[in-house]
Amino acid sequence: MLRDLSLGECEDLLLSQKLGRLAVRDEEDVYVVPLQYAWADGYVYGHASAGKKIRLMRLWPRVAFQVDQIGIGECWTSVLVQGTYHELQTEEERTHARQVLLRAFGGHAGEVTFGHGHRTTLAEAILFRIVPYEVSGKALEN
Amino acid sequence: MLRDLSLGECEDLLLSQKLGRLAVRDEEDVYVVPLQYAWADGYVYGHASAGKKIRLMRLWPRVAFQVDQIGIGECWTSVLVQGTYHELQTEEERTHARQVLLRAFGGHAGEVTFGHGHRTTLAEAILFRIVPYEVSGKALEN
Repeated sequence: MLRDLSLGECEDLLLSQKLGRLAVRDEEDVYVVPLQYAWADGYVYGHASAGKKIRLMRLWPRVAFQVDQIGIGECWTSVLVQGTYHELQTEEERTHARQVLLRAFGGHAGEVTFGHGHRTTLAEAILFRIVPYEVSGKALEN
Repeated sequence: MLRDLSLGECEDLLLSQKLGRLAVRDEEDVYVVPLQYAWADGYVYGHASAGKKIRLMRLWPRVAFQVDQIGIGECWTSVLVQGTYHELQTEEERTHARQVLLRAFGGHAGEVTFGHGHRTTLAEAILFRIVPYEVSGKALEN
């Protein structure tokens, strides 16, 4: 049975995972890369080095972020966050984002960017959040 | 060490997996869903029931499809296929696509669509392929 997830169930899935896929516009095309993230305060937090996905999100800030969990047999759960890219500029915002990401990644300060970019550390990274305007999810259950 | 994959390595990853993420334009937004697929003849083959992703791909046929494999520790491999949506119309093309998908899915003819849509069978499904104009991949290795 395929059913819609409640917002609470979507948040549970977002909290339980560390890796999602980020899709961004690229002129008339679409670009999609894996992204390590943390879900906190109702936002998707991420970090990256300067590269293609950051360049594209600055140009087209309306992005999509998808997280799923594959269950036993044919069962699965999937959440789609559609939202707007916000780069964190103030030291207060950046410190908070680093704390959120460190907590999600188990305290590995040297955690690398998971994406089609270069390795970076949290201290040097571009930090951002995706501010959702829509969160939806589906589950296929036996 | 982060490195580019060769085309052969990209194809190896595409052949080894069954689930990827499909990103499509949606007006000024982007939409991304999980997709069960088969890689054959240099194409990504997929099936779906009539729904949002099919409606969007008919409107904006330039799509992106991403597949990854997470290794031990921080290692990962990821492939991005950028290509054009082609819906399979002739009975010959549709029969071939069904065979390709059945082979990839281990012969389960009732295999359901993995996506944010309705369940469907291969017999009733809309069948399509993504014709790549660019295939690229990265690996992070220790």
